[in-house]
Amino acid sequence: MAEARPLDALNKARDKKVIIDLKNGRQYIGLLKAFDIHINVVLDDVEERIDGEVKRKVGTAFIRGDTIIMISPA
Amino acid sequence: MAEARPLDALNKARDKKVIIDLKNGRQYIGLLKAFDIHINVVLDDVEERIDGEVKRKVGTAFIRGDTIIMISPA
Amino acid sequence: MAEARPLDALNKARDKKVIIDLKNGRQYIGLLKAFDIHINVVLDDVEERIDGEVKRKVGTAFIRGDTIIMISPA
Amino acid sequence: MAEARPLDALNKARDKKVIIDLKNGRQYIGLLKAFDIHINVVLDDVEERIDGEVKRKVGTAFIRGDTIIMISPA
Amino acid sequence: MAEARPLDALNKARDKKVIIDLKNGRQYIGLLKAFDIHINVVLDDVEERIDGEVKRKVGTAFIRGDTIIMISPA
Amino acid sequence: MAEARPLDALNKARDKKVIIDLKNGRQYIGLLKAFDIHINVVLDDVEERIDGEVKRKVGTAFIRGDTIIMISPA
Amino acid sequence: MAEARPLDALNKARDKKVIIDLKNGRQYIGLLKAFDIHINVVLDDVEERIDGEVKRKVGTAFIRGDTIIMISPA
Repeated sequence: MAEARPLDALNKARDKKVIIDLKNGRQYIGLLKAFDIHINVVLDDVEERIDGEVKRKVGTAFIRGDTIIMISPA
Repeated sequence: MAEARPLDALNKARDKKVIIDLKNGRQYIGLLKAFDIHINVVLDDVEERIDGEVKRKVGTAFIRGDTIIMISPA
Repeated sequence: MAEARPLDALNKARDKKVIIDLKNGRQYIGLLKAFDIHINVVLDDVEERIDGEVKRKVGTAFIRGDTIIMISPA
Repeated sequence: MAEARPLDALNKARDKKVIIDLKNGRQYIGLLKAFDIHINVVLDDVEERIDGEVKRKVGTAFIRGDTIIMISPA
Repeated sequence: MAEARPLDALNKARDKKVIIDLKNGRQYIGLLKAFDIHINVVLDDVEERIDGEVKRKVGTAFIRGDTIIMISPA
Repeated sequence: MAEARPLDALNKARDKKVIIDLKNGRQYIGLLKAFDIHINVVLDDVEERIDGEVKRKVGTAFIRGDTIIMISPA
Repeated sequence: MAEARPLDALNKARDKKVIIDLKNGRQYIGLLKAFDIHINVVLDDVEERIDGEVKRKVGTAFIRGDTIIMISPA
């Protein structure tokens, strides 16, 4: 039986709402539309939260993988 | 059906106005003219914003990918 | 006799409860479901602890490898 | 039609005066003589500016790419 | 005669007690069970020391190589 | 006509006196004896300067490339 | 005539006493026994110095290359 790989978990989260925690403390919440092996990510319907408060809303966001700590379901 | 890749989202944003958030807190707003797999980016008609204020305007800017956090439509 | 490799230790920890210490001081405790050579990791039934206190619980978490210091049994 | 690549923009700037913004806040202004895929750069007739003030002038400077944020026309 | 390589020194330290100094100032003391070319390391019977004081004991620890400064015999 | 590459500029500086600016603010002044594609560098007759003051003199110094910001003629 | 490469200088320093300056400000003085292309280094008869004071002595030390700024003769 094939063993689970981390990117499988991201694949299951496609088109679902996720929270992305960045190294600078910010969070981005949105629909996971795309990702690659560098963990570059595209979200749709995105909220940016700083200290838990919504600061910005954007239709789509490309987030560079090396700034990401964690991706979890919203 | 092929799955979406993050660079497809950047490709759709070509010649459109984008906001780029850098790790140092600055923002660059301009027309996305080019990008590569390192997320090196070229913008035209660029405004540099620090704390929301326009600090500089340049005709074109090459931005090194490893300084970038997020790219979103302006 | 083959010599032990670090990823063998992670392999033995599959489906077991682990603590992951991150560079930003946070800890994530959960069941180790997947990992890869970059030490990208997926945990299930995850608790986030800051200064020893539980701050958040999530069903599953993808953690980017380059933010990780240590993985040990919980 | 071939799509634009970021290094094309640097190529057009050869022998022209550019400003390079570094991660440490300094700026180098000079003629762009050479660059490579790591964005290592060589400038001629270089001024180093800290907080907008000229601090040093050198005939030529090799600048390591990973210290660079942005390159724009001077 | 073949010249010595750094990983040979780690190889000789297998199953021996070592001190690992991390970039965040912490030390991990334990038996060196495994390592790879990234200097990812597995220790057994591990003590975590902060400012010289034992803070935690774990049966086994996977330590990501890029957090390590030095490995020396304990 | 072949285009100039950044390492050509370093090549012309061989056996000449250069100043190397490091990310930690220190400067090393000496004769450029060797370099490689990582910009690892060897200097001879080296002065270390901190805040413009000579702090140390060494016969030869190997400097790791990823600590270097700029190399210019002394 | 072949041009000098930086690792040649390290090779000449084998079995000789060197000072290694790390990014965290510490110095390690010892006999250079081994190194590789990542500048991972093994020293024997090692003194650790912080602010010029000897803090620790170890028989042998593996030092990870990416923490090193400079290697020079002691």
